[in-house]
Amino acid sequence: MSVVDDPSAPSGAFIGREHILPVRVYYEDTDFTGLVYHASYVRFFERGRSDFLRLIGADHVRMAALNTAFAVTRLEVDYLRGAGIDDALIVRTCFDAVKGARILIRQRITRGDEDLTLAKIQAVCIDLKARARRPPSELLLALEAKLASDVKT
Amino acid sequence: MSVVDDPSAPSGAFIGREHILPVRVYYEDTDFTGLVYHASYVRFFERGRSDFLRLIGADHVRMAALNTAFAVTRLEVDYLRGAGIDDALIVRTCFDAVKGARILIRQRITRGDEDLTLAKIQAVCIDLKARARRPPSELLLALEAKLASDVKT
Amino acid sequence: MSVVDDPSAPSGAFIGREHILPVRVYYEDTDFTGLVYHASYVRFFERGRSDFLRLIGADHVRMAALNTAFAVTRLEVDYLRGAGIDDALIVRTCFDAVKGARILIRQRITRGDEDLTLAKIQAVCIDLKARARRPPSELLLALEAKLASDVKT
Amino acid sequence: MSVVDDPSAPSGAFIGREHILPVRVYYEDTDFTGLVYHASYVRFFERGRSDFLRLIGADHVRMAALNTAFAVTRLEVDYLRGAGIDDALIVRTCFDAVKGARILIRQRITRGDEDLTLAKIQAVCIDLKARARRPPSELLLALEAKLASDVKT
Repeated sequence: MSVVDDPSAPSGAFIGREHILPVRVYYEDTDFTGLVYHASYVRFFERGRSDFLRLIGADHVRMAALNTAFAVTRLEVDYLRGAGIDDALIVRTCFDAVKGARILIRQRITRGDEDLTLAKIQAVCIDLKARARRPPSELLLALEAKLASDVKT
Repeated sequence: MSVVDDPSAPSGAFIGREHILPVRVYYEDTDFTGLVYHASYVRFFERGRSDFLRLIGADHVRMAALNTAFAVTRLEVDYLRGAGIDDALIVRTCFDAVKGARILIRQRITRGDEDLTLAKIQAVCIDLKARARRPPSELLLALEAKLASDVKT
Repeated sequence: MSVVDDPSAPSGAFIGREHILPVRVYYEDTDFTGLVYHASYVRFFERGRSDFLRLIGADHVRMAALNTAFAVTRLEVDYLRGAGIDDALIVRTCFDAVKGARILIRQRITRGDEDLTLAKIQAVCIDLKARARRPPSELLLALEAKLASDVKT
Repeated sequence: MSVVDDPSAPSGAFIGREHILPVRVYYEDTDFTGLVYHASYVRFFERGRSDFLRLIGADHVRMAALNTAFAVTRLEVDYLRGAGIDDALIVRTCFDAVKGARILIRQRITRGDEDLTLAKIQAVCIDLKARARRPPSELLLALEAKLASDVKT
């Protein structure tokens, strides 16, 4: 089924436990050096995490209905190679583990066979008043099959 | 063929002369009001124009090889309705006419049956030293079948 | 008093009815063409309007306390000249008129003696449920001395 | 001297070896949670580094004249507290050391007495063809007085 028949925005797909999301490089993502601005990758990684969660049924609207949101508490990014305008990138997202309120995520951005950028993200589950909370059981159940290691709560 | 088999970034599709590009609303696109930030639509419109051109063979890399780039010279946007996180939007792009170095484009962003935002864009063809130039014939030929009105150069 | 003594973020200043806000061009504002991305100016204009309002006592926090927010409903921008990395720009903001819920604003971005970008903005006063409302009298009183033409409500 | 007399964009100031840059939170920096988007801090940190370098005479235009640019190769950010619209933040930047082509930088973003975000950045000096190079001596000399530890090249 093509985009013409089903124009809902694509959200990537799972290959096993890894979520892959194609991302195109547009003007907005580049800077005057001609390459992708380093903070743009941070935005791309967030799109990957959002769509990972969307595909397991945990989009932001559903999470808000369960008094749940996410906040990034730690970010590590290694920049290995640059990307340029028009490049077709893939954001690859693995949810590693859930530990109490914390969620550990590993992500990569690739172009063809090359790794461009690697990231380790730590997020925390919060309620809508911004207090740390354990993930709701619906989220834990949905995550379980996709976690790279065991759920330890 | 699914995204898993062909992970190149999607670039939308044509329905007649109108290019349609699905766009998802992520964190990065919203602001503290809970809705999409008004400048984010300006980025979405640019993605639509870039992918319109990409699908007719006029991506930025190819245009640069022809000593050609584009600069936006005028922008008119009407904001009718807001959008929120997770919304699946469609950017709809029609190239209206080419007049000398100028290119006239009409765009809309829709969600389901609703128009959210309307835009009229005027861009100008420039060479890589930023001087106005007539579009290269390769671009004119590619555009011709997609122009809403006749090419007047 | 220098930034060292008073490190609060600067918010520009009024010269008569015109608010001026210095803005520096950073990496984040440019794109691969080497110049400022056209949507970045839309962000710069918004900073100018926010700081205009801040200096007359109508920052977002105060407006929210009065059940008031703003939404941009129409944007017209003319791009005359480009800007590059490190450039020191000035955002110049005049509030023209208030007509019912609508506020009309004219803005320019300049570099030295040159006009780079011109904008006409139409915003609308809304309450916190996103319904159009007349501006609160506190805002009208504060605006009155700064309007280029008479308040017509 | 006020902004009215000297409307050039402010670039912060040094207090000893620490560069401080006031940054205001605008619409563009927030997301639908009501707080500053986590990638916005990455932009703020970059502004701090650019203005640190600008004040020691090493702005991007001057560096390009010396066949020199910078690329971020590693980023670590810890998010401790959120910030909201209108907040007046300070970006605090210390250049720690230069090791061959690599430059090590520590940064913080504060609001009043509170640390909001901490960062460790590793950048690399490159030439305009994107090959790693040792920093030009002009840059090393300018940096020397501001490095938290000794220059080891």
